[in-house]
Amino acid sequence: MVVQTEFLIRTHGERDMQDITDNVQQAVKESGIRHGIAHIFHLGSTAAVGLIEFEPGLRQDLPELLHRLIPPSRSYGHERTWHDGNGHSHLQATWLGQSLSVPVRDGRPYLGTWQQVFLLECDIRPRNRTVVVTVIGE
Amino acid sequence: MVVQTEFLIRTHGERDMQDITDNVQQAVKESGIRHGIAHIFHLGSTAAVGLIEFEPGLRQDLPELLHRLIPPSRSYGHERTWHDGNGHSHLQATWLGQSLSVPVRDGRPYLGTWQQVFLLECDIRPRNRTVVVTVIGE
Amino acid sequence: MVVQTEFLIRTHGERDMQDITDNVQQAVKESGIRHGIAHIFHLGSTAAVGLIEFEPGLRQDLPELLHRLIPPSRSYGHERTWHDGNGHSHLQATWLGQSLSVPVRDGRPYLGTWQQVFLLECDIRPRNRTVVVTVIGE
Repeated sequence: MVVQTEFLIRTHGERDMQDITDNVQQAVKESGIRHGIAHIFHLGSTAAVGLIEFEPGLRQDLPELLHRLIPPSRSYGHERTWHDGNGHSHLQATWLGQSLSVPVRDGRPYLGTWQQVFLLECDIRPRNRTVVVTVIGE
Repeated sequence: MVVQTEFLIRTHGERDMQDITDNVQQAVKESGIRHGIAHIFHLGSTAAVGLIEFEPGLRQDLPELLHRLIPPSRSYGHERTWHDGNGHSHLQATWLGQSLSVPVRDGRPYLGTWQQVFLLECDIRPRNRTVVVTVIGE
Repeated sequence: MVVQTEFLIRTHGERDMQDITDNVQQAVKESGIRHGIAHIFHLGSTAAVGLIEFEPGLRQDLPELLHRLIPPSRSYGHERTWHDGNGHSHLQATWLGQSLSVPVRDGRPYLGTWQQVFLLECDIRPRNRTVVVTVIGE
């Protein structure tokens, strides 16, 4: 059995990290699937999805780490072509990733107690983001 | 068809990388599924799963690389709140990832000859780790 | 329903990034599956798969970033054992990842307009690469 849905998230600009675990849980619940996996996919190339203990400290630390290692810069090839100031956004989002699956057990995402699903805005302005959830199982 | 199992791994502390390919292979074998995918998921936020040529050199290189780019530090926001010394562990594990799928062919994980599945302990002490394997296919 | 196929890609050496979206789309089309996921897997430990806006700037930026953060070096443990000059290739490919899933909708990979699937050669010479696509759905 396969049930595919999507939901929208309004982000508040660069470094905005949001907990989307409840959205995923809702998608799993509505699918009626009890055991399997839920595939979580961000549709677009300048935001990422991942797993983290969602608390205020790490919510600040992860974007800071990304900016330290993959800083905004006008010297990226992407900038020289497009001049849109978000070359680093693409690189951050590609490296962190836009595809993730979590187990489904007893009709719910099966996660650790301190393990949540996040969406991280890597682009330089607020955006409307589409997340596609595909639940596969029985 | 969906078969979900889990296994436990005792880690020996930070930087301990273990080859869990045999555990995954066992889960696939016991599922009876011949073709499809095996989804491998670490339940928790301070260890990661991934793919590597599992040999002594890289087993040392990957944790060293993670510590060079994402070093232990008391200046993480996570530390200022929780004082548990493992802010870097969360960041390392989130970036490397806790979710991975491999193809299943002829009843076995279909991997390259020098491509193994690993669990990497990113936390600062030995832990008991739970890995969930969901095999989907026919 | 599960359909598994594979395709070959000839790479032109280190830093060669190729757009494999059409190959994935072909595999999805031939599977006859309308809704579900397509799992994309690189069989081997020194190339990676991922998602990016596939344009000339980023095609240069991502390999450059990987080389800045994970540079070629003879001091890796892998080098001291194997002397094959590709320790950094393994580390780059492991961190970027070799496993990826994308949603399938209406018989096609469901991606953003500027979101393509790439294969990145991380090894130090041209290689023949095998990519396994497993389409699961109905």
